Amino acid sequence: MTRDRPRPVPIDTAKGKVDYDILPSLVGYNLPRAQIAVFAKFATAVAEHQLTPGQFGVLTLIGANPGLTQSALAKAVGIERSTMVAVIDGLQRAGLVERRPSPIDRRSYALALTGAGQKITETLKNLVADHENRVLSDFSDSERDTLISLLQRLVGNC
Amino acid sequence: MTRDRPRPVPIDTAKGKVDYDILPSLVGYNLPRAQIAVFAKFATAVAEHQLTPGQFGVLTLIGANPGLTQSALAKAVGIERSTMVAVIDGLQRAGLVERRPSPIDRRSYALALTGAGQKITETLKNLVADHENRVLSDFSDSERDTLISLLQRLVGNC
Repeated sequence: MTRDRPRPVPIDTAKGKVDYDILPSLVGYNLPRAQIAVFAKFATAVAEHQLTPGQFGVLTLIGANPGLTQSALAKAVGIERSTMVAVIDGLQRAGLVERRPSPIDRRSYALALTGAGQKITETLKNLVADHENRVLSDFSDSERDTLISLLQRLVGNC
Repeated sequence: MTRDRPRPVPIDTAKGKVDYDILPSLVGYNLPRAQIAVFAKFATAVAEHQLTPGQFGVLTLIGANPGLTQSALAKAVGIERSTMVAVIDGLQRAGLVERRPSPIDRRSYALALTGAGQKITETLKNLVADHENRVLSDFSDSERDTLISLLQRLVGNC
């Protein structure tokens, strides 16, 4: 240790004495922490059905938009078309999604849920609603709406 | 196409006619979208200084808590100690962090920023503040506080 530097002060983290400086005042610090916390529990719940949160989103969109093409779906989710093709391959192998010839474009497929796909999507929607209610148990309806609206404004600003 | 199924309705995503069903009403849908959007720009800005957002967080904590041990830092950040050792290795190689003998525990190191580390941490703090102000340009102070407080409550609920 050199003499011209202040001696390090031992930090007692057991007593929570770490100084987080500007971090707690940053949305950019709190946002990923919240995302990690909420996602971990949700992913665990969905995994019991051998699915990921991303697959749940895709199933929900196909269920709400039967006939959607892979390209349109990729665009709606915001991922590359090639990635979406792999996602649909997996869901088709699992017997949850069907590719049918598109009535408007021979080069693309119209996607639809199978009976099993519809069933698991309904199950997952209920599970997701339960998860949200648990995570937001102490939020008023107005606080929930405020959070969602502020998050959407953030997305719009980026 | 079988006859007993409804014919898929082509979706015109160009006109934004995809039905997102329950997704936009879910915090679990809006949270990762906001996280991805905010993080992408921030990571790009920090990368110009050859650092990641995670490294910025670590530098800030060491700067605010000189003498912090690697274990205490890992705990404060919420990652494994072994992962933190690798992070510190990288920051030490870059000449930004020093490991000094701990005055309270021979088996651990007390961490401190070097002069270069202090300089870049200050630069990054300003850059991060600018980034936050840009992303939150249309947020009032009260809205910014509300967002952070709601995100922190989410973390507390998980």
